[in-house]
Amino acid sequence: MKFIIQHKDKHSGARSGEFETAHGKVSTPIFMPVGTAATVKGVHIPHLRDDVGAQIILGNTYHLYLRPGTEIIQNAGGLHKFIGWDRPMLTDSGGYQVYSLTDIRKLKEEGVTFQSHIDGSRHMFSPESVMDVQRKIGADIIMAFDECTPYPCNYDYALKSMEITHRWLQRCFDRFNSTEPLHGYEQSLFPIVQGSTYKDLRAKSAEAISSFGAEGNAIGGLSVGEPHEMMYEMTELVCGILPADKPRYLMGVGTPANILESIALGVDMFDCVMPTRNGRNGMVFTRNGFMNMLNNKWKDDYSLLDEEGTSFVDTQYTKAYVRHLFKAGELLGGMIASLHNLAFYMWLVAEARKKIEDGSFSSWKDDMIRKVTTRL
Amino acid sequence: MKFIIQHKDKHSGARSGEFETAHGKVSTPIFMPVGTAATVKGVHIPHLRDDVGAQIILGNTYHLYLRPGTEIIQNAGGLHKFIGWDRPMLTDSGGYQVYSLTDIRKLKEEGVTFQSHIDGSRHMFSPESVMDVQRKIGADIIMAFDECTPYPCNYDYALKSMEITHRWLQRCFDRFNSTEPLHGYEQSLFPIVQGSTYKDLRAKSAEAISSFGAEGNAIGGLSVGEPHEMMYEMTELVCGILPADKPRYLMGVGTPANILESIALGVDMFDCVMPTRNGRNGMVFTRNGFMNMLNNKWKDDYSLLDEEGTSFVDTQYTKAYVRHLFKAGELLGGMIASLHNLAFYMWLVAEARKKIEDGSFSSWKDDMIRKVTTRL
Repeated sequence: MKFIIQHKDKHSGARSGEFETAHGKVSTPIFMPVGTAATVKGVHIPHLRDDVGAQIILGNTYHLYLRPGTEIIQNAGGLHKFIGWDRPMLTDSGGYQVYSLTDIRKLKEEGVTFQSHIDGSRHMFSPESVMDVQRKIGADIIMAFDECTPYPCNYDYALKSMEITHRWLQRCFDRFNSTEPLHGYEQSLFPIVQGSTYKDLRAKSAEAISSFGAEGNAIGGLSVGEPHEMMYEMTELVCGILPADKPRYLMGVGTPANILESIALGVDMFDCVMPTRNGRNGMVFTRNGFMNMLNNKWKDDYSLLDEEGTSFVDTQYTKAYVRHLFKAGELLGGMIASLHNLAFYMWLVAEARKKIEDGSFSSWKDDMIRKVTTRL
Repeated sequence: MKFIIQHKDKHSGARSGEFETAHGKVSTPIFMPVGTAATVKGVHIPHLRDDVGAQIILGNTYHLYLRPGTEIIQNAGGLHKFIGWDRPMLTDSGGYQVYSLTDIRKLKEEGVTFQSHIDGSRHMFSPESVMDVQRKIGADIIMAFDECTPYPCNYDYALKSMEITHRWLQRCFDRFNSTEPLHGYEQSLFPIVQGSTYKDLRAKSAEAISSFGAEGNAIGGLSVGEPHEMMYEMTELVCGILPADKPRYLMGVGTPANILESIALGVDMFDCVMPTRNGRNGMVFTRNGFMNMLNNKWKDDYSLLDEEGTSFVDTQYTKAYVRHLFKAGELLGGMIASLHNLAFYMWLVAEARKKIEDGSFSSWKDDMIRKVTTRL
C-alpha cells in the first residue's frame, strides 16, 4: 500500500494525501462509513458508491465471523464480492466488539474466549485466528487484534492491557507475514496504539507500534467515554510519535467537530457509526448545524431537507416530510437521514482536504466547528 | 378522467387501456404500490419512479388524516408535493382502515366515530368529511366512503351495510360535486361495490354503483379472508355489470396469481401491500416462483437475486447476501425485497398488457400462474 502526502497545513498537523489499495485509491483525510454486518445500515450499495461517494468502507470482523460466518464470505470470494462493493474496504479485528458486546468473556495470554451476543455460543479469538478470519474476509486493510480498554481504566490495568496488545501484535504480524492473501490481492495490516488516557503509556505504545514499520497505524481505545479534550490530547501525543509518512487512523471517531479537530492533529482516517446510527434516530447533520427531525419545529417546514447538501435526498425530500416519516416510525426516515449524514461526512472530509490544499484549513476549521455544533 | 380501451382479449374479459389524470397517463392493467402513511415503506421516491416504474401510487386517507394530519398535507400543496411524487395518486377513503385497525368504533347513519390506533383519540368520519379530507390531500383519484364488511358476514348485516354504503355514496357525490379541487387540478371520485359474498347483493350493489356514472368503479370487501374462488366469482359477476368503458379497480388484491385471474375477469387496477409487507418478511416473488429468503437453501447461493428481474437490486445483490441481511435483521434486506417485489408486480401487469395486445393473454396467464405459485 502506497501512501503519499500531497499537502501539509502550515498552522496545524493536518495533511492531505492519497493511498492506494488493490481496490483503488483513497484520498485523505477520509471518513469510512461503517458496514458492521456486511451492510451500511439502510443504504443501497449504488447509493453508497455514487450518491454518498464513499471511497472505503468498514466491516466488523466480530459480526461477520458470527453472521453470516467466515466461510460464507470466503466462499463468495471475499467481502467485496459478498456485498457487491468494488472499492477499498477495511475490517476491524473484533477487539472492540469482544469487549463492548459480549457479557461473558475471559482474556488469557492465548486470546479471548467469549459468548456470542446473538446466541450465546462460545468462541475464541486469538491474534492468529483473527488474522486467519481477516484473510478469509479479504478486506484491503485489516486490523491487529488488540484489547480495547474502557474509560475510566486504572493505570495498572491499562499498562497490562497495553503490554498484552503489544505481544499480540507481534503474533498478528507473525501470522500475517507467514500467510498469503486468499483472494488474489494484497492486504495491509495496521497495528493499534492503546494506553488508555495515560500519556506515558500512549507514548510507549505509539513507539512500540511504530517499530513494526506497518503500512498504516491506528489509534484505538479513544472515543470510549473520555472527555473530548483528553481524546485530543492523546491523539496529538500519539500523532507526534507515529511515523509521519504513513496514514494515521483514529478508530471510532466521531462527531463532525471531533473529526475536524483530529484532522488538525494529523489524523488521516476515521470511521464512526454516528452518521447512520444517529440518522436512524432522527438526527441530521448539516454544514450549518444539526437538526433533530422529531422536533415540532419542522412540522410544517416545507423547505428542502438541506439546500446545500450533496445527496439526492437533500433536494428530494422536505423537512416536514422527513419529520413525518420519523414521527410515523417509517423506515424511509432513517434511510434518508443515513444517506444524508454519510454524504455530509464525506463532504466534510473532502472540504477539509480542499482547505488543506489551499492553505485555509485552520481558520475554516474553527468556523466550521462553530457551525456544526449549532443546534438548528 | 379519460379512459380508452386499447385491446380486448378474445378468450377472457381482459383488456388493456389507458387513463389520463392531471399528473399523467396510466396504462392498464396497472398495479398501484401502496404508500400507506405517505411512503411506500422502505423505498426511495426516485427508485419508485425510475427503478420500479410505478405509474400511480396509493395513499391511505385514514393514516394520513391521523398523521401527519390533513392540514400539514394541504399546506404542503397536497400529497404529491408533500412526498415529492409527480405522477398520479389515489387515496382510499379510510373505510377499510376504520374497520380493520380501530378497536372501538360506532357506526351510525351520519358516519363512524372511532378511536385512533395510534393514540386512542376520538374522531368521526362521514361521507362529507372524508370527501373534504380527500380534497385537501389532493389525490387524482379519490374513493367513496364505504363500509367494508368482514368475512364471513351474515346476509342481514351484508345487506344493511351495502345499503348504508349506497346512501353514503350519494352523500359523497353530493359533497364532491358541490366542492372544488383545492390544488388546481381535477380529481375523480370512484364509488365502491360492496355486498360481501352474496351474489344478489353484489349484483344489486354493482347496479346501484353503475347508476352514478362515475369515471371509474371499484370493487371492495373482497380479499378479506374469503376463498379465492369466491373472490373470483364475485369479481366476475360485478365486472359483468359495471360499465365496460370505465376502469374497474379491485381493491386490496392481491397475490400475483390473484392479479392475473382478475385481469382475466376484466379488472384494470389493483393495489396491495403484499409486495412490500411480504418483502419485509423475506418473501421474494419472481416470474419463476417465490422464495423465502430466510430459508437455509440460499445460505451459500451466490447467484444473483433474480437474473431476469427488472430492478437494479436483482443484479446488484446475490441470494446468499440477501439471506444474510434477513437473518441479521438488517434494514437493507426489506429494502431490497420491497424494491424487487414492486418491480416484479409492475413487470407482471406490463407483461399481461403486452399479452393482451398480442392475443396470447389466456394461455400465458395459465402458464404464468403455474410458475408464480411455485415455491423455489
